[in-house]
Amino acid sequence: MKEYSSKRLGSCTNPSPVDSALFINDDEGVLIDATLSGCRACRASGGEPPSLEKAGPREKIFFNPTDVTAGIVTCGGLCPGLNDVIRGVTMVLWYRYGVRNILGFRYGYEGLVKDCGHEPIELTPKVVEDIHQDGGTMLGSSRGPQDTATIVDNLVEKRVNILFTLGGDGTQRGALDISREVQKRNLPIAVIGIPKTIDNDIYLLDKTFGFETAVASSVGPITSAHMEAKGVKNGIGLVRLMGRESGFVAVYASLASSDVNLVLIPEVSFTIDGIMRYLIERIKAKAHAVIVVAEGAGQELMNATGADKSGNKKLGDIGLFLKGEIVKHFGEQEVPVSVKYIDPSYMIRSAPAIADDSVFCFHLAENAVHAAMSGRTELVIGTRNGQFVHIPTELAIEKRKKVNPRGLLWQSVLDNTGQPMDLS
Amino acid sequence: MKEYSSKRLGSCTNPSPVDSALFINDDEGVLIDATLSGCRACRASGGEPPSLEKAGPREKIFFNPTDVTAGIVTCGGLCPGLNDVIRGVTMVLWYRYGVRNILGFRYGYEGLVKDCGHEPIELTPKVVEDIHQDGGTMLGSSRGPQDTATIVDNLVEKRVNILFTLGGDGTQRGALDISREVQKRNLPIAVIGIPKTIDNDIYLLDKTFGFETAVASSVGPITSAHMEAKGVKNGIGLVRLMGRESGFVAVYASLASSDVNLVLIPEVSFTIDGIMRYLIERIKAKAHAVIVVAEGAGQELMNATGADKSGNKKLGDIGLFLKGEIVKHFGEQEVPVSVKYIDPSYMIRSAPAIADDSVFCFHLAENAVHAAMSGRTELVIGTRNGQFVHIPTELAIEKRKKVNPRGLLWQSVLDNTGQPMDLS
Amino acid sequence: MKEYSSKRLGSCTNPSPVDSALFINDDEGVLIDATLSGCRACRASGGEPPSLEKAGPREKIFFNPTDVTAGIVTCGGLCPGLNDVIRGVTMVLWYRYGVRNILGFRYGYEGLVKDCGHEPIELTPKVVEDIHQDGGTMLGSSRGPQDTATIVDNLVEKRVNILFTLGGDGTQRGALDISREVQKRNLPIAVIGIPKTIDNDIYLLDKTFGFETAVASSVGPITSAHMEAKGVKNGIGLVRLMGRESGFVAVYASLASSDVNLVLIPEVSFTIDGIMRYLIERIKAKAHAVIVVAEGAGQELMNATGADKSGNKKLGDIGLFLKGEIVKHFGEQEVPVSVKYIDPSYMIRSAPAIADDSVFCFHLAENAVHAAMSGRTELVIGTRNGQFVHIPTELAIEKRKKVNPRGLLWQSVLDNTGQPMDLS
Amino acid sequence: MKEYSSKRLGSCTNPSPVDSALFINDDEGVLIDATLSGCRACRASGGEPPSLEKAGPREKIFFNPTDVTAGIVTCGGLCPGLNDVIRGVTMVLWYRYGVRNILGFRYGYEGLVKDCGHEPIELTPKVVEDIHQDGGTMLGSSRGPQDTATIVDNLVEKRVNILFTLGGDGTQRGALDISREVQKRNLPIAVIGIPKTIDNDIYLLDKTFGFETAVASSVGPITSAHMEAKGVKNGIGLVRLMGRESGFVAVYASLASSDVNLVLIPEVSFTIDGIMRYLIERIKAKAHAVIVVAEGAGQELMNATGADKSGNKKLGDIGLFLKGEIVKHFGEQEVPVSVKYIDPSYMIRSAPAIADDSVFCFHLAENAVHAAMSGRTELVIGTRNGQFVHIPTELAIEKRKKVNPRGLLWQSVLDNTGQPMDLS
Repeated sequence: MKEYSSKRLGSCTNPSPVDSALFINDDEGVLIDATLSGCRACRASGGEPPSLEKAGPREKIFFNPTDVTAGIVTCGGLCPGLNDVIRGVTMVLWYRYGVRNILGFRYGYEGLVKDCGHEPIELTPKVVEDIHQDGGTMLGSSRGPQDTATIVDNLVEKRVNILFTLGGDGTQRGALDISREVQKRNLPIAVIGIPKTIDNDIYLLDKTFGFETAVASSVGPITSAHMEAKGVKNGIGLVRLMGRESGFVAVYASLASSDVNLVLIPEVSFTIDGIMRYLIERIKAKAHAVIVVAEGAGQELMNATGADKSGNKKLGDIGLFLKGEIVKHFGEQEVPVSVKYIDPSYMIRSAPAIADDSVFCFHLAENAVHAAMSGRTELVIGTRNGQFVHIPTELAIEKRKKVNPRGLLWQSVLDNTGQPMDLS
Repeated sequence: MKEYSSKRLGSCTNPSPVDSALFINDDEGVLIDATLSGCRACRASGGEPPSLEKAGPREKIFFNPTDVTAGIVTCGGLCPGLNDVIRGVTMVLWYRYGVRNILGFRYGYEGLVKDCGHEPIELTPKVVEDIHQDGGTMLGSSRGPQDTATIVDNLVEKRVNILFTLGGDGTQRGALDISREVQKRNLPIAVIGIPKTIDNDIYLLDKTFGFETAVASSVGPITSAHMEAKGVKNGIGLVRLMGRESGFVAVYASLASSDVNLVLIPEVSFTIDGIMRYLIERIKAKAHAVIVVAEGAGQELMNATGADKSGNKKLGDIGLFLKGEIVKHFGEQEVPVSVKYIDPSYMIRSAPAIADDSVFCFHLAENAVHAAMSGRTELVIGTRNGQFVHIPTELAIEKRKKVNPRGLLWQSVLDNTGQPMDLS
Repeated sequence: MKEYSSKRLGSCTNPSPVDSALFINDDEGVLIDATLSGCRACRASGGEPPSLEKAGPREKIFFNPTDVTAGIVTCGGLCPGLNDVIRGVTMVLWYRYGVRNILGFRYGYEGLVKDCGHEPIELTPKVVEDIHQDGGTMLGSSRGPQDTATIVDNLVEKRVNILFTLGGDGTQRGALDISREVQKRNLPIAVIGIPKTIDNDIYLLDKTFGFETAVASSVGPITSAHMEAKGVKNGIGLVRLMGRESGFVAVYASLASSDVNLVLIPEVSFTIDGIMRYLIERIKAKAHAVIVVAEGAGQELMNATGADKSGNKKLGDIGLFLKGEIVKHFGEQEVPVSVKYIDPSYMIRSAPAIADDSVFCFHLAENAVHAAMSGRTELVIGTRNGQFVHIPTELAIEKRKKVNPRGLLWQSVLDNTGQPMDLS
Repeated sequence: MKEYSSKRLGSCTNPSPVDSALFINDDEGVLIDATLSGCRACRASGGEPPSLEKAGPREKIFFNPTDVTAGIVTCGGLCPGLNDVIRGVTMVLWYRYGVRNILGFRYGYEGLVKDCGHEPIELTPKVVEDIHQDGGTMLGSSRGPQDTATIVDNLVEKRVNILFTLGGDGTQRGALDISREVQKRNLPIAVIGIPKTIDNDIYLLDKTFGFETAVASSVGPITSAHMEAKGVKNGIGLVRLMGRESGFVAVYASLASSDVNLVLIPEVSFTIDGIMRYLIERIKAKAHAVIVVAEGAGQELMNATGADKSGNKKLGDIGLFLKGEIVKHFGEQEVPVSVKYIDPSYMIRSAPAIADDSVFCFHLAENAVHAAMSGRTELVIGTRNGQFVHIPTELAIEKRKKVNPRGLLWQSVLDNTGQPMDLS
């Protein structure tokens, strides 16, 4: 058991320009396990309980703000809140620390490669003022890695000494490579990640930005599916939601909606026979049904292969597949059925952040800037047990957070939908 | 040139129970052409200008309310406002005329066929009170005709003497068949249509219910497409909207959004080469583009065949087709491109009516009830030049309203999008 | 009976730069009364039916676009759609006619007075591109007239030869003064009004921009009032809506909501005793009630005096007044009551336009620009019987459109709310 | 330092009907302080760290479900989510535990007093199915306490052995009285509170239900205030939000909006002179300003007296007061100003819960039922460090959670608004 502290670029000698009553001590941590049983177990073993370094402003900082050139890059698919984070990082660098050189790199890691020819945007409060009212990312994005050495050459040429990387685990893996190359060259460049995953699947983190908005935006399509299902005899409304390896969006959206009769997620295996038994029975009894399926569910039932540029396994379209299977099986049973398939993914991920998410993005941005200015590097920002923490990048991408099929959350889904626990 | 008056079941001898200052004279009409030039031309030819019978309450009515059993049926695809119309018809029958027997037939014309086994719902103010807050139809729907004689047998058995048919031209064609069978048998049954077409393509009518809601609900997906398009280098956001033969939804939604660069509708022909020339130029200049395509556009470019149960020609998926063509042609030109295709149709058609549409539905319902109680039949209710009118069913389904490619509305689209007039 | 044609600055000799198939003939009119009875009466009297000049692009125009400097000014209270109209006027001037000098005068008529010191904003497509996503007016507004001669001096100095005035009847009265001063001086300056009244009370016009949005935005507060009313025993939810002299917003919002039990508008007089009799009975039967009151209703029951800067009679707060009266009368009758008063006016009038309104604003803007470029002046743009027309300014401000207490619209309200016809 | 465990009605002998893998051990706790420094301090002092009992299903339960009659009551002002909690409690009692007797007491504690004559509603899944789509409370509410002995008499008569109290601290204080009376009489009645405070001010709790919805619903009115402020020269938009003693709603809504220039909350004192200095300077520089004030802020500047039926100190209307002061002080300084005051409170508190809040309500309901069925009493349900816990009622109402004027959250507000730290 250990405390996860952060990698540092050097000692902090500059006084922070932010108000002095509010600083966080460098040795403050947030317990990873906040339960009494965890605490007892740890005491029994004699050590300190495992904890993550607490985020926040430090009394002394590493960088002299006038020497800072900061860069921001957004990678991978869209996610609500990207513009909020870009805006927050810019505002806090500018107003709290007095940094005046802030570069918005365009189109993901491509923008960090000089030869790609995408000129960065100079970010100022005026430029970012209203961007949070739009979804998407004002910087643009792209998928996939770029050559690490080339990127670092470019950072050096542009005198960038702080780089904020907004993206998923591929992105943070790339950030780790950049950080290691930077250290190999002994450069004072801080690399701070802000994890972007609409699936909310980062290990150790309570939630990631965009998740609450994604859930809120998923309820409307489910309601539509419900109306379509009830609009015909034996109607089935089928909604595919985000969730490559973790089904949190599908789970929360279904709980919020309360109109869903079957939720399928990657963590819970099922067979076509298993779900057909339940569906046919349900249709015979109620004449309609609503299904929510996470995009990564049931992949083993199809024969999808390949990967996208981010290195993500290419998923088969489980929605289309299920639609076909339902029509086939109901046909075999001579039960007429009408399946309406809705895939709202692009509409959900391009939505502007809802209020709570927007505030969360601002706090992430603040803490990312504090971490960077204090000379920390190779970490990502997040919350654990409700408090903002630094997580070493390597730890954050080590594994994924998942819905526990034997846990209380999934039990709530079973109760809420009436679906059987065993769909095999 | 003629006045289109309504077919009547017989003479009106019952005094109307509604307030007496407000009655419409039976010979009042609404001019079909309200322009000065139309008026002059008509005068020159010596006749009366063509007009449609004005809708509204009559001083004397045909039916004795206590003898009425009314039926309501909803057919075809979902459309915003169906529940508002069901609610309005029920409320006005009940409170203004004192009718107490109102049957909601289930699942379209199937519900009018006894052997289908769908028991009708007894509609009362209590039952319909809050249904307008939901999209869809509380009665359910189905596609396709049923045997006319069987339907009339069932109406007779259930003593239904007023039937309200909510549906598109297939439905109103079916209603015409029912009405003719009814007259052949010399039965006093009024058949009143309320045209339901989210495409807003009924000949002679200003607009149909659900259209404004459809337009309002289409703006969000277009904004999403815009964000997705700008979110990557050379992004193209492609949205498919309703519009089998008339592109009004695509046109109005694009004008409301102002983010669209290319609108494709059934009324305006185009070639793949024509649109690719424009798109490649646009992408090179601006690095993103937004396309809105009506479902019926460009059908001649694909090889779709067949028809659905409503007898509608089966459409090829022009969105998927365009996506493929864009990827192919940009590939040939070695211009990288990323196409995000959004099909929000089910979400649009299942939305609850917005305020203005909701009021419009209520007025349609009122006038439908007034027409029925006065013993009129074989007509549909709508507005012409802003006033509620009776249109003989035969006339209403004769042809479709279309966007005029040489008219001011399409000119507004060209100006708004910057797309060339000629896409061939 | 006469045709209302427009005042003209001179003969049109410049060919229009817009596409030639689409021009409107100068002698085309739209009938004011599109009914058959109107048509017959007019024929009996031997004259032509009264009509309004049809709006739209003309083949020949008066102004050479390169010589044009256009000005736009927004006056009076906020109204949804102001930014849409500003945007539309700018876009159409720029792209269709090639006008490059467009001035946005700030803060209403103050901005037209040099000494007020508000510099106008140069409007370009870039500047106005996204303004329609915000409510309010990007130009700012103010109430009240300014010295006409001073304004005209300033127009001359700034070489403005087209002025678009967005505002209510006070504003259009001011526009008329400006136009007359311009003619007295024999200046070729066109003054075109776009009537802005959230109350939808312009004589002869079907509807005014912002009205549909206002109705849509009023439903939420009524729902809140309903929830508050049902949330306690004997709860009364009371919502004050716009409507100084015409109750259209209150009427349409109540019809759209269907939760309202009493609607009070300026056109229908009532006494406190009359409404208390109904309310006490309703509360005893149902334990809650929802009231919607237009701001101008029941003014004779209070003792308000004075006027605001626009010259509008200062209204007493009928909402607060009613709340007090209800508490007093229920107290006297020893019926406990809890009144929750909601005044959402600022939230409604500052909302961005909904889709349909937004398209309507664009069409208004187009037609205003066409009228101005053709050298017409002293007119306002609107729709009559669904078609865009020119209305002489003097005619448009002559009187107000009102809800007819003996008409079908008010009858619908009575039926919908269950309130008695006679509240005296 | 101690562990806060729960009061129990007796030993648990019935096996729980819920799935067995998921039970929480009775001795599991959630640390109140999850920081490393807290853990070290506690270790230094030799004791166990303070913790709250973890909520969740237990393997053995106290009540036999067939013997249970449960009651639910909602008290005090409306709050988003009340219907979600009522629905959740009913669903979990019914489906997970098999309880069939569930009474919804009407109109707050009045409904628990027989002589008030409000008959309770029998709650079933059918009754509560869709209630979460409405704001408000389907049970109605009232303010103020009722006689404790009379309430307990009624519970006994109706054989209620579980009572869920949804309300603020007054309500939970009343629940404590009921619980003590119950114990005095040695009755096996569990009293479980679900704290309802839109202000989010419960001591020890992360958040309370309705808070996120309140924040989300507050952003619109702030945007309106912004548009109104910019709509005139020297416009000030002033919004009053909830927050009697804690300013969390004002703080979060302002952070989410990013359009606010001055936030005033109860925890931070200010003088009229202090805020006028800032406002006049701001208006001179920017010509508009947006102010958000929590209802409880600046009360010492007015002379309000009295209390409402809930025993809450009657607050003066700080919004109206500030409006008057601003007009007066700007007048004295001869700076023209136009203040638009918006009070959206009734619209915010009557809103239906947003998705995230809705899921939170369901989890609160689940845990409340688990606690009750296990025979616990005199506790309220909430989350601490992200986990659901039991808090002894006495502890929960002991003091309030407040915004720390020297903490990071308030610092974010200062940075976001640009307002000075010192407003005295």
